[in-house]
Amino acid sequence: MSKFLSEKYASLKEYVPGEQPQDKKYIKLNTNESPFPPSPKVLKSVNRTEVKKLRLYSDPESKALKEAIAENYGVKSENVFVSNGSDEILNFAFMAYGDKGATFADITYGFYKVFSELYGIKARIIPLKEDFSLDYKAFLKGEGLVVIANPNAQIGKSISLSEIEEILKANSENVVLIDEAYVDFGGTSALPLLEKYNNLLIVRTYSKSRSMAGARLGYAFASKDIIADLEKIKYSTNPYNVNRLTQIAGVAAVKSQKYYDKNCKKIIKNRANLVQKLTEIGFEILPSEANFILAKHPEISGEEIYLKLKERGILVRHFRDERISEFNRITIGTEKQMEALIKKLKEITEERK
Amino acid sequence: MSKFLSEKYASLKEYVPGEQPQDKKYIKLNTNESPFPPSPKVLKSVNRTEVKKLRLYSDPESKALKEAIAENYGVKSENVFVSNGSDEILNFAFMAYGDKGATFADITYGFYKVFSELYGIKARIIPLKEDFSLDYKAFLKGEGLVVIANPNAQIGKSISLSEIEEILKANSENVVLIDEAYVDFGGTSALPLLEKYNNLLIVRTYSKSRSMAGARLGYAFASKDIIADLEKIKYSTNPYNVNRLTQIAGVAAVKSQKYYDKNCKKIIKNRANLVQKLTEIGFEILPSEANFILAKHPEISGEEIYLKLKERGILVRHFRDERISEFNRITIGTEKQMEALIKKLKEITEERK
Repeated sequence: MSKFLSEKYASLKEYVPGEQPQDKKYIKLNTNESPFPPSPKVLKSVNRTEVKKLRLYSDPESKALKEAIAENYGVKSENVFVSNGSDEILNFAFMAYGDKGATFADITYGFYKVFSELYGIKARIIPLKEDFSLDYKAFLKGEGLVVIANPNAQIGKSISLSEIEEILKANSENVVLIDEAYVDFGGTSALPLLEKYNNLLIVRTYSKSRSMAGARLGYAFASKDIIADLEKIKYSTNPYNVNRLTQIAGVAAVKSQKYYDKNCKKIIKNRANLVQKLTEIGFEILPSEANFILAKHPEISGEEIYLKLKERGILVRHFRDERISEFNRITIGTEKQMEALIKKLKEITEERK
Repeated sequence: MSKFLSEKYASLKEYVPGEQPQDKKYIKLNTNESPFPPSPKVLKSVNRTEVKKLRLYSDPESKALKEAIAENYGVKSENVFVSNGSDEILNFAFMAYGDKGATFADITYGFYKVFSELYGIKARIIPLKEDFSLDYKAFLKGEGLVVIANPNAQIGKSISLSEIEEILKANSENVVLIDEAYVDFGGTSALPLLEKYNNLLIVRTYSKSRSMAGARLGYAFASKDIIADLEKIKYSTNPYNVNRLTQIAGVAAVKSQKYYDKNCKKIIKNRANLVQKLTEIGFEILPSEANFILAKHPEISGEEIYLKLKERGILVRHFRDERISEFNRITIGTEKQMEALIKKLKEITEERK
């Protein structure tokens, strides 16, 4: 850090993304990417003609993209916001609605804590219950911005639509942000509540189910007024936030819903198989509605399993948070990748016998 | 706006990008884009293989891109920062260094004022001299973050390397941000001063000379410590800020320096011709070292010329700032575009006789 940096950030701990080692080719099960390529329509949409047009700015309104998303989900364009990855929406929401604090779980997407620190927002942390499910009743008395990842980002468990509705009702003076990054793998979306609650902000991403993590595209649904707030902050920080090719690929992707639905079904099937196989060889698995599972072995530490898998060419994510440090988060990949993983985990557990 | 929005932003006036009307095809001379396509290497780099890889996150370190930029400009990778457009770097700089205020000119890139308002930063505004050149001596007593667009974003005039050095010396306790968005069209870069001054932050963009406005790519040069500050803020807001295809295109572009140098020469030549032709038909032109000029007619208002050009299918940029409201900012395009512009301006001026 330089001597010029604002003291505000002296103790700020930035977010640490999952590792991207370049030393060799890994089976990458650590950042919840899709194992499938973007849809054929996406591959076709990004072509030489469009690359030539890069000399021109992207549409700051992202009009075509917003319309395509609105149509796909049966909402109006004015209820849609798009961004350079969903982290940008989270960032704007903490800026816009954090004055009276922020309420979120102890184990959830790590970035909520970073945004709170960044903007000096008082965080009210709600511990997950012992079974790692959300203590949703504690969210009925939210303070400031209420943030819930559903399914929960580090765990995979969901809360129900009626629980979300209770939280929305009880927090009529707060914005309730439901982070649905993982919703397409079996979770419950809050979208049916959009028209009824003007304090609901749903955040989504193209990074997981839509196989476009590298394109950086997030989107949100909310009341017209909340979208206007986000637009105001966007136009005050980075008006051309979504680049041209991502806007085009984003339209093509949202018009390929069947392709992606099929991929999600494969992931759900591979998840069920993986849970079964890992249970058979002695792992404890947390039930998940996301494209990952948390797995723990009764005798081998989370860190040891992480390191031994890495040695064997498989990357999983090991978090140091005390409550889940014995688990590893494993992204659900293709059948072949899952077979390779199970084989290596069998080796690792058998070495110990 | 919603009732939930922080009162901090109640009076915030967001940035207004140049218009992008979709009603018909215009000759677009309003947002200083390049009239030339990206280099052949760029066109080749964004291919189907790379689009397929969009399922994977982009490299949050942008390692290959930083290395390519560092090599091209003869600096170290640790002195390079990259971002989702240069607006993002400006944003981070105002966050990082604005505690004691910000110092910038009255007529310059309009976003500096927006960032000051956004973060509640006290702005010290230095009026340009009567001839619209920078009153550089007033910058010797900068307060907080000192920001100079060189060449100046709305005017096109530059200050010299020795003037920049005086400002750096006199502001040893402040970061001095030199915004070089337009430097490749004949301006003077502060890059030779990089090793000598640890308070220098140079901001650049691929949007103008590199024909990649739609790809969103900004970059910066600074001391290792300043780069570390910017990285800290990036990892606390949007770690994967530069998407995959833009990283790849960015590498290809920086390896096409000759192609872009040739384009810049054409722009400089077209600028000289345009200045001559417009002077001949009675316009007053401010001397410019950027890819635009400011032009004013002694009898026809700036707004009228803007509107009449728009009717005739040519878009230029008309600012309402009092001191330059009689001028229009005209982007330098191809020879053919400049001929069309001159023809229409002749028509407009002759109607009045």
